[in-house]
Amino acid sequence: MLENVESLMHRYVGEVDAYALRLYDQVPRGKRLRAKLILRIAGESEAAERLAAIVELIHAASLLHDDVIDEATTRRGIPSVNATHDSKTAVMLGDILYSKAYFELSDFAPFIIRKISDAVALLSAGELLDVEYSRELQLDEEKYFDMIYKKTAVLIEATAASAAYLAGKDTDAFGLYGKNLGLAFQIIDDVLDITADAKTLGKPALADFKEGKTTLPYIYLHDTLSEADQQRLRSLYKKELSTGDSKWLKQKMQESGAVMRAITLAQKLGREALDAIAGESDPDLERVITDMIEREF
Amino acid sequence: MLENVESLMHRYVGEVDAYALRLYDQVPRGKRLRAKLILRIAGESEAAERLAAIVELIHAASLLHDDVIDEATTRRGIPSVNATHDSKTAVMLGDILYSKAYFELSDFAPFIIRKISDAVALLSAGELLDVEYSRELQLDEEKYFDMIYKKTAVLIEATAASAAYLAGKDTDAFGLYGKNLGLAFQIIDDVLDITADAKTLGKPALADFKEGKTTLPYIYLHDTLSEADQQRLRSLYKKELSTGDSKWLKQKMQESGAVMRAITLAQKLGREALDAIAGESDPDLERVITDMIEREF
Repeated sequence: MLENVESLMHRYVGEVDAYALRLYDQVPRGKRLRAKLILRIAGESEAAERLAAIVELIHAASLLHDDVIDEATTRRGIPSVNATHDSKTAVMLGDILYSKAYFELSDFAPFIIRKISDAVALLSAGELLDVEYSRELQLDEEKYFDMIYKKTAVLIEATAASAAYLAGKDTDAFGLYGKNLGLAFQIIDDVLDITADAKTLGKPALADFKEGKTTLPYIYLHDTLSEADQQRLRSLYKKELSTGDSKWLKQKMQESGAVMRAITLAQKLGREALDAIAGESDPDLERVITDMIEREF
Repeated sequence: MLENVESLMHRYVGEVDAYALRLYDQVPRGKRLRAKLILRIAGESEAAERLAAIVELIHAASLLHDDVIDEATTRRGIPSVNATHDSKTAVMLGDILYSKAYFELSDFAPFIIRKISDAVALLSAGELLDVEYSRELQLDEEKYFDMIYKKTAVLIEATAASAAYLAGKDTDAFGLYGKNLGLAFQIIDDVLDITADAKTLGKPALADFKEGKTTLPYIYLHDTLSEADQQRLRSLYKKELSTGDSKWLKQKMQESGAVMRAITLAQKLGREALDAIAGESDPDLERVITDMIEREF
């Protein structure tokens, strides 16, 4: 159960340090998607709960360091640790969560230790790519996919495969399910930054491009534009947009089919995820995908 | 051999990311004490070299994050990564070294995985204590030992015990050797900050107290001072010292016997380390200790 996962996380952090626990208690909890995925795939065993707590600690650690790296002042609508305290506190707390998670992970089977630790190494490399690719307009589709794989999909892939391993299920099938879930989720997140309004997003709309992130719809859009419009698009990179620019950008995104092309790709990835676990007949896991790809954009 | 350890470290980082490797190549190498210790205890096997590379990556990662946390602008006399680049680059590179080290560690026996990962969790907790105890004068001897155990000794302890495990030697004896080596090393480092000159240290003398670190000689000194002198000592905490203050402090440190008391304790810890491995008849490992505790102060 998710409550047990929360208690375990709390206990693990408290076992390291009392002050770390006080800091940890101030971090917003998030949706615990990875924990839910583990409990769904592996069933509600004690081992599944421990693995879920470990993966969520790793995810929380990566967000703490991410916020330092992005100099983000909020996380899930509330001030981030690097803002309420300082960067060094966020770095230290992240290190504690990471290292305690690894220590607890050492009780698991070598397959799981390798899967999760490999994923974290790629996740860390993804942080670096994120910064590298935010220096200038990055229009290479392959690089975009490499980055979202490392930043988002690889830990979900490793999580799903590890949960399958615990339950004696097909690790490749669930790994593929997790990977495609992660990729599709990130693409849709990138689409919503363009199509949704600030109220729905809980953050300003069209924020990615301003922050230097060239997401898939921008890559597709650039492909279809006239040279003059390409130049206009480039001139907006990392800029505060005027109302006119915002309107132009959103209109071009729709007109050109760039947004639809990105959604279509996310849907294709989602269907591949469904195919991967077709033999499992698990309506809960299927609904995770269908809810994601059949929503309104 | 140490050269093989360097090559392995280089290869491991390169396997994660090319840009990370370029950054890593700019980090000064240090003395690789932990690697030497492993090769001495475990002999020069391929597994010993891999373990040595892993532990040195962990140590390098911890220094990268340490420099961010301490806002240090130099490391081993040359500018630190957070100074030449920025804090976020140092955080990311540290995350990459940590996570790749854990991934490579997953090939080792559960005993070693647990020892090392437990040590890193305590090391991270030590970072937090270091900051906590640097806020105000910290005169509790027990807290000082807890901190230097976590910040310095625990990884050396785990390293020595793991190397012993690889070689089929007594893991408790070598663990104790490593722990006491680490504690004595740190106490002597803290003494040298008081007794050595800037040229020998490669950094300003009496820097610890100014930076908020109340080390063992200060704790002992405070014990012996008159109330007026205690007040003067307290007034110097975190301050830039005048020539007169420096002279007064050094004189009191010698007069009161505080420095000698700290050295005597380090020597006692060193002798316990020698006793722990007395049965091994390993002159190299004995010399590590005797060189350290029989030097001039």
